[in-house]
Amino acid sequence: MTDAYQTIIIFGGTGDLAHRMLFPSLYNLYLDRLLPDDMQIIASGRGAMDDDAFRASIDLAKTLPEDHFDADEAAAFLSRIRYCPVSGEAAQFAALRDMVGDRIERGVAVYLSTPPSLFAPMVEGLGKAGLAGPTVRVAMEKPIGHDLASSRQVNDAVNAVFDEDRVFRVDHYLGKETVQNLLVLRFGNTMFEPLWSARGIEHVQITVAETVGLEGRVSYYDGVGALKDMVQNHMLQLLALVAMEPPASMAPAAVRDEKVKVIRSLRPMSPETVEALSVRGQYGSGAVGGEPVRGYADELGERSDTETFVALKAHIDNWRWAGVPFYLRTGKRMPERSSEILIQFRPVPHSIFAKKGKGLEPNTMLIRIQPQENIQLQVMAKQPGLDRHGLNLREVALDVSLSTEAAGQRRRIAYERLLLDLIEGDPTLFVRRDEVEAAWTWIDSIHQAWTEARVPARPYTAGTWGPSAAIALIERDGASWHE
Amino acid sequence: MTDAYQTIIIFGGTGDLAHRMLFPSLYNLYLDRLLPDDMQIIASGRGAMDDDAFRASIDLAKTLPEDHFDADEAAAFLSRIRYCPVSGEAAQFAALRDMVGDRIERGVAVYLSTPPSLFAPMVEGLGKAGLAGPTVRVAMEKPIGHDLASSRQVNDAVNAVFDEDRVFRVDHYLGKETVQNLLVLRFGNTMFEPLWSARGIEHVQITVAETVGLEGRVSYYDGVGALKDMVQNHMLQLLALVAMEPPASMAPAAVRDEKVKVIRSLRPMSPETVEALSVRGQYGSGAVGGEPVRGYADELGERSDTETFVALKAHIDNWRWAGVPFYLRTGKRMPERSSEILIQFRPVPHSIFAKKGKGLEPNTMLIRIQPQENIQLQVMAKQPGLDRHGLNLREVALDVSLSTEAAGQRRRIAYERLLLDLIEGDPTLFVRRDEVEAAWTWIDSIHQAWTEARVPARPYTAGTWGPSAAIALIERDGASWHE
Repeated sequence: MTDAYQTIIIFGGTGDLAHRMLFPSLYNLYLDRLLPDDMQIIASGRGAMDDDAFRASIDLAKTLPEDHFDADEAAAFLSRIRYCPVSGEAAQFAALRDMVGDRIERGVAVYLSTPPSLFAPMVEGLGKAGLAGPTVRVAMEKPIGHDLASSRQVNDAVNAVFDEDRVFRVDHYLGKETVQNLLVLRFGNTMFEPLWSARGIEHVQITVAETVGLEGRVSYYDGVGALKDMVQNHMLQLLALVAMEPPASMAPAAVRDEKVKVIRSLRPMSPETVEALSVRGQYGSGAVGGEPVRGYADELGERSDTETFVALKAHIDNWRWAGVPFYLRTGKRMPERSSEILIQFRPVPHSIFAKKGKGLEPNTMLIRIQPQENIQLQVMAKQPGLDRHGLNLREVALDVSLSTEAAGQRRRIAYERLLLDLIEGDPTLFVRRDEVEAAWTWIDSIHQAWTEARVPARPYTAGTWGPSAAIALIERDGASWHE
Repeated sequence: MTDAYQTIIIFGGTGDLAHRMLFPSLYNLYLDRLLPDDMQIIASGRGAMDDDAFRASIDLAKTLPEDHFDADEAAAFLSRIRYCPVSGEAAQFAALRDMVGDRIERGVAVYLSTPPSLFAPMVEGLGKAGLAGPTVRVAMEKPIGHDLASSRQVNDAVNAVFDEDRVFRVDHYLGKETVQNLLVLRFGNTMFEPLWSARGIEHVQITVAETVGLEGRVSYYDGVGALKDMVQNHMLQLLALVAMEPPASMAPAAVRDEKVKVIRSLRPMSPETVEALSVRGQYGSGAVGGEPVRGYADELGERSDTETFVALKAHIDNWRWAGVPFYLRTGKRMPERSSEILIQFRPVPHSIFAKKGKGLEPNTMLIRIQPQENIQLQVMAKQPGLDRHGLNLREVALDVSLSTEAAGQRRRIAYERLLLDLIEGDPTLFVRRDEVEAAWTWIDSIHQAWTEARVPARPYTAGTWGPSAAIALIERDGASWHE
């Protein structure tokens, strides 16, 4: 713990993410004695408020599972939180600097849980107030810009104050147990590597499905759409972890060097190819979970060409993945909430078994990220019992990631991992600038191709898996979406 | 069921194997309605007895699990059994032939559950009595001879009466669920084949450990020993199934062609190599399961050089297995009864993980045949929870063969499978003559090398894993026996 920073400042401390995720995560770390003994938490928001009023606004009893909330511990935790209003004025930054005082020498982690438009001004304010020296780190959530050019502007502004090695770009998917387990599975075993290429893998599917619609995000979402909101960050991070070459070590630079290589190897789309390789969709009215819901335009109050669904067939142009499609799809108003990666292995080259009963299914590895987290291998085994006229087969599921409960641990919030790494200074699970820019480069190629080829957002009924063209996208290749 | 033979004759019907295994197996098949409706079972032994007396001697209530015994069903089953004494005289064979009558047209399976010395005379008697035509099959248990020359004599005598495709040589290990599952696992999945060679496998261990001593087998065992009693048959069959190339189909000839190729590829031992590649042992007094037991010579009543334990380092000289040792060991008076195959995969070529806590263990596949049957893959996964300073790893066991109970089936006796295949005429899980002879060829090379190099049977304490030289045999290669 010698390296752990002893102060954390949360900008956007009155916001939804801070209250639902960040404070409960910090409380959990506190409860497990993973925070430095002298940890101080400073929340910052636009409005004026004293410490007690802010503390009273944090309702841990409501956010946390009942059996995990302890009133005494919660009170002790809250006593470590102070509040400092910052809406952008220099005097406010100065007051914040004063509140930090000489604790700055023991390290300050700044978490920007604000609208992205404030990243640059906030960082600038920190710099001017002297809250950006070598003992200060800054973390921020996606999105970093809305295309390559704007992301460069944001990153330039941030890097003008903080060296890149002190910038921690959060993608909360990387905080998930299962995502890290994927790394251990790939590189901690000899079993999978011989299969892990075009030789052994037929295709990969990455799905991030939401049941929600536009909801409170009207001002942000329209004009952005699913491609930029979900694919550019979460889904390309997952793709990179699946597809990366073995790094030489788990050192942050080694891992991130391999990830960025994958993202840079994504084949750009063009107006000529984009229609065969992508599908845009926008939900109309329908029903989700048995409840009728309105269409996107209705929620928005006007017609829009923004896609709320996208399906892509991506190619990674390198030796390992030549010819292996990576099918990505994400959408709002899907039938269920689920984030998962399916690795579809190639079938056996020849079946020696008579075709009785259950046929020979190709092996799969299913990496479930949401709502449950687990990893399952699907293998063929003998049907127990006295088979007649040849062996009968069945698929059995091997559960690789016996649940955390089985190991006597509660399931943690992804942010606990990320906040701890931020405080302790391990950037492995954060996104480096070159990754962001490589991702935007590819995303921009798709977006531009859509514009030039005038690819419309096809309507789909809320509560379905997107436009039928998305089904056709994969079925044309003789494969099917995993459901 | 059109092919199923409708009569089975069991020679040695008053013997131990018939009462412990064969009749209970037939009863189980009957109970599951897997026998032909008109099935008749004829038991034969040396003594005179009428049908009722013989039926009364079969104590199914004692042999079967309580919840599987049904008095009414048992009575109906027993009513299908007749008894015919045969000690070798032509008149007795003629009486047996009469008892079969015109049922011979609907097929007769003969099971020789007799001492091996009777195989040739019994088969000859059957032939002379007209009980050996194209609608008659014959099954027999190991041992077939005690070396290549004597096995040829037995096989010649049998083949003089029965064509090879009507000879079913039983190795009850092949009737086991897990042994068949190994075939499905290997050839029903793409996952394992890329690893299944010198590229992916470091070594293989096959252990067949018994806790019993000489017991009732004095007359047979001494002068035979562990090499001929266990390695020549069961262990080489297991080795062949692990090491065989993919057959083109599950057709009996295809599978057995591949098995015999493996056995023929075993590198013979010579007086020069045998001491580095084998260890003989004989148990002295000691304790098994907390009970003091006598040594072998004490049980026998005289000194003997017969080995009750053997450990071998075998090499398969073909492309797939060049350089991969197959360590075999079997013994009496071991600490526990267990038959298992361990596939030790190669370690990852390089660990990217910091060495904290549990290190990176190479993957293994453990195929347990006795006393439980199951198959387990050992893989590395992430230790759930917030690892500090790099990911923490743990080994997890993936149970491939969810137990038969989980599939709602009782565990079957290996003989059920084999008797059903015998009746239905599927020879896949029986041993062909060329396999027997290839196995004896290799075994003879070892036995002859022992004789020429005067390799002694080293003493070991009953209740231990054999002489320390057996430990050294594998440890010299940097490996360890799985325990």
